[in-house]
Amino acid sequence: MSHIQKALEAADQGLDASLVRLFEFLRIPSISADSAYDGDCRKAAEWAAAALREIGFDASPRKTIGHPMVVGHRRSGKPGVPHVLFYGHYDVQPPDPLALWNTQPFEPVRVQGPHGDMIVARGASDDKGQVMTFIEACRALIATAGELPVDVTVFLEGEEESASRSLVPFLNENKEELKADFCLVCDTDLWDRDTPAITTMLRGIVYEEVIIKAASRDLHSGMYGGAAQNPIRVLSKILADLHDGDGRVTLPGFYDGVKDLPAEVKAEWEALNFDGEEFLGEVGLKVPAGEKGRSVLEQITARPTCDVNGITGGYQGEGAKTVIAAQASAKVSFRLVAGQEPAKVQAAFRQFVIERLPADCKAEFLSHGASAAIAVPTNSPPLAKARAALAEEWGRTAPVIGAGGSIPVVGDMQRILGIDSLLIGFALEDDQIHSPNEKYDLRSFHKGIRSWIRILDALAK
Amino acid sequence: MSHIQKALEAADQGLDASLVRLFEFLRIPSISADSAYDGDCRKAAEWAAAALREIGFDASPRKTIGHPMVVGHRRSGKPGVPHVLFYGHYDVQPPDPLALWNTQPFEPVRVQGPHGDMIVARGASDDKGQVMTFIEACRALIATAGELPVDVTVFLEGEEESASRSLVPFLNENKEELKADFCLVCDTDLWDRDTPAITTMLRGIVYEEVIIKAASRDLHSGMYGGAAQNPIRVLSKILADLHDGDGRVTLPGFYDGVKDLPAEVKAEWEALNFDGEEFLGEVGLKVPAGEKGRSVLEQITARPTCDVNGITGGYQGEGAKTVIAAQASAKVSFRLVAGQEPAKVQAAFRQFVIERLPADCKAEFLSHGASAAIAVPTNSPPLAKARAALAEEWGRTAPVIGAGGSIPVVGDMQRILGIDSLLIGFALEDDQIHSPNEKYDLRSFHKGIRSWIRILDALAK
Repeated sequence: MSHIQKALEAADQGLDASLVRLFEFLRIPSISADSAYDGDCRKAAEWAAAALREIGFDASPRKTIGHPMVVGHRRSGKPGVPHVLFYGHYDVQPPDPLALWNTQPFEPVRVQGPHGDMIVARGASDDKGQVMTFIEACRALIATAGELPVDVTVFLEGEEESASRSLVPFLNENKEELKADFCLVCDTDLWDRDTPAITTMLRGIVYEEVIIKAASRDLHSGMYGGAAQNPIRVLSKILADLHDGDGRVTLPGFYDGVKDLPAEVKAEWEALNFDGEEFLGEVGLKVPAGEKGRSVLEQITARPTCDVNGITGGYQGEGAKTVIAAQASAKVSFRLVAGQEPAKVQAAFRQFVIERLPADCKAEFLSHGASAAIAVPTNSPPLAKARAALAEEWGRTAPVIGAGGSIPVVGDMQRILGIDSLLIGFALEDDQIHSPNEKYDLRSFHKGIRSWIRILDALAK
Repeated sequence: MSHIQKALEAADQGLDASLVRLFEFLRIPSISADSAYDGDCRKAAEWAAAALREIGFDASPRKTIGHPMVVGHRRSGKPGVPHVLFYGHYDVQPPDPLALWNTQPFEPVRVQGPHGDMIVARGASDDKGQVMTFIEACRALIATAGELPVDVTVFLEGEEESASRSLVPFLNENKEELKADFCLVCDTDLWDRDTPAITTMLRGIVYEEVIIKAASRDLHSGMYGGAAQNPIRVLSKILADLHDGDGRVTLPGFYDGVKDLPAEVKAEWEALNFDGEEFLGEVGLKVPAGEKGRSVLEQITARPTCDVNGITGGYQGEGAKTVIAAQASAKVSFRLVAGQEPAKVQAAFRQFVIERLPADCKAEFLSHGASAAIAVPTNSPPLAKARAALAEEWGRTAPVIGAGGSIPVVGDMQRILGIDSLLIGFALEDDQIHSPNEKYDLRSFHKGIRSWIRILDALAK
């Protein structure tokens, strides 16, 4: 039996013990956003460091201004061995609303689901379950071969669900210690229940708030209506102008530098038979509302977009009030893809608004974030090796895909440590992360462990 | 000395005594919107009825489902004498915010103001001070001539500041008793400090709330952005479409039946030298934002308009949330002028929205009011007589003007009693009605009494 077969077998036979360990981890309510749980966050960090030490890592929680980081190394000292940095997070979202949980959020249970057994608890999927796939893979490899095929540094964050304020300072202060050849991030989804995926494109974002002001106070629309500027009307007109009839964003220069998908990725995506209608159907929609001539999959992951995330102005209570508001405001966000510069998009938006202001109106702007898109090369050797390993485990090729949202740590790793990330995860869209009754399929957990065994082995070659 | 000169002299000499009575009335906190003051509303009604009885009216408070009405008659019994119905209200707005008052709202004081003495108290202008100009005019006429020149019915409401729920039922139940040749309403402004005015046009209103719905729940804009319909964007587009580049409302048929001002009214208005820039300048604006080619005075009183009074959707807190809202809504009101049918405007608006809904969106509507504009004939004999009387008192012709807002009782009188109203009042724009430190100029009160003496005399001829 090859050493990898032995490790896989050990993982299969040790699954129940792996679950016991995961359940221990899940029982710690490490809610990072609520200071009442600061002690639990520390406890979770200590638990994770201890779990790593148990399998031979030199691991410890590290102090920050917020919740501790966990860093653990297991390095062979041999020259020429690849060195991977694994990233995950031990903190979880608050469980509210509690009333909607069928079980206690921090009392993990194994229950039967429509697609096999599921682990139900806050953090089961996001991200304790995913983190444990990697640690348990290391355990099986070490138990059977006495060593890991590559050098590994595990790096766990405790503030991912609450704005990651310590992350960038910590990366900067520990640059040398955390440097590796590349990073493995386990916080993403499978393509579907039977198909793995490697996420290589993450959209960036420019998030702006615009406030339009006209009169010096709210006016009575009976007295002033017809003569006074109405900021809600002015704002509506500007927002309406942001898209053309084909669903394209009209900001000048918005599409500068935006490239079409490489032909091979496009072909791969077409082969995925992504059902846009089904995707939209799950939330009560049917017809793609985005750029004409683009598939839903392109629209949500590979194309830049503009959305209005909030709007407010004037009277919003019950019934009627005949007021012309002195101001109105909207939150407008742009999802960016590779090639777009956040600063340029922000400037173009502000210019666009200012050019459209009628007499007596002025605009104020607040920035709520500007970060560039991230694209990992799709032709790197580690990516090819991970893909081959995933294909062996799942019997299917993992497509390289984009994610609509942003995972800032990937950009931080690129910028501060100078390393690219491979995002590989085993979560599913129906895992209810951030919602009541969060779950992780037992199959995700089990095949996740097996996948990492194969990937770590493949990366050594 | 003519009998009218005697009455005017009596009013002048009795001014201090008139003020004592007004102050008594003002001390009663008849706040109709707050049930804690129900007793005070009853007290104010009784006070007014007693004041009328004191000068020979057959007057009493009348029970309703809400606050009492006050009805008082003083009729000569002679055939051919004109019969006028006088309308006003004894209830007042709540005085909040109390901290902003310089004196106690229900402890009236006479203080020196920039334009002479002022009476400061809640209700000083709206509407107790105005009501008392009429009652004190009657007192002076009766005291000097022993009778009134016309038959008079005084009708005071106690729910004008709180939606007038008893008004229509009461008018319906007491149609015969309240019927007169025409109505005098004293609840409006002078044109300016030195110029009286007769209001003959009141804009109507159609007030709609529209709710645009798309997805079955709020969506993550990172995940769905680019493919999902965004109700805020849909709503903004529809609202932006409601006006054309010339500031005209684009609802099909909106201007059907809308007539230009009669040439003589237009000429009168031009002679008023209304300073639109000054009017807008007081609230920090400068350039009229309404229909091109119309004066500000036309825009705010004689032309139909459309305003968005409120808009709400998505995330409105601090900072950023990457959400695509499941719904967005707006409150949209149309000010109507004579010739427009509220039901037609409402239907046209709803049709306008529905025609613009993209796939997957639906619209729901709530009506918050629909009432037609009111126009009183500008060439009636009573109006001409009142104008002449006002000219004698003020030395200036009273223009017939429009009011931007609506005074529903005028429509109710027309519809239920079949009589037109003349709206004549002596308030000023700076009276701070509904605000802290409400005041009524002593000159308004004094010349108001004198004006009514002259008007009642003129109406008899």
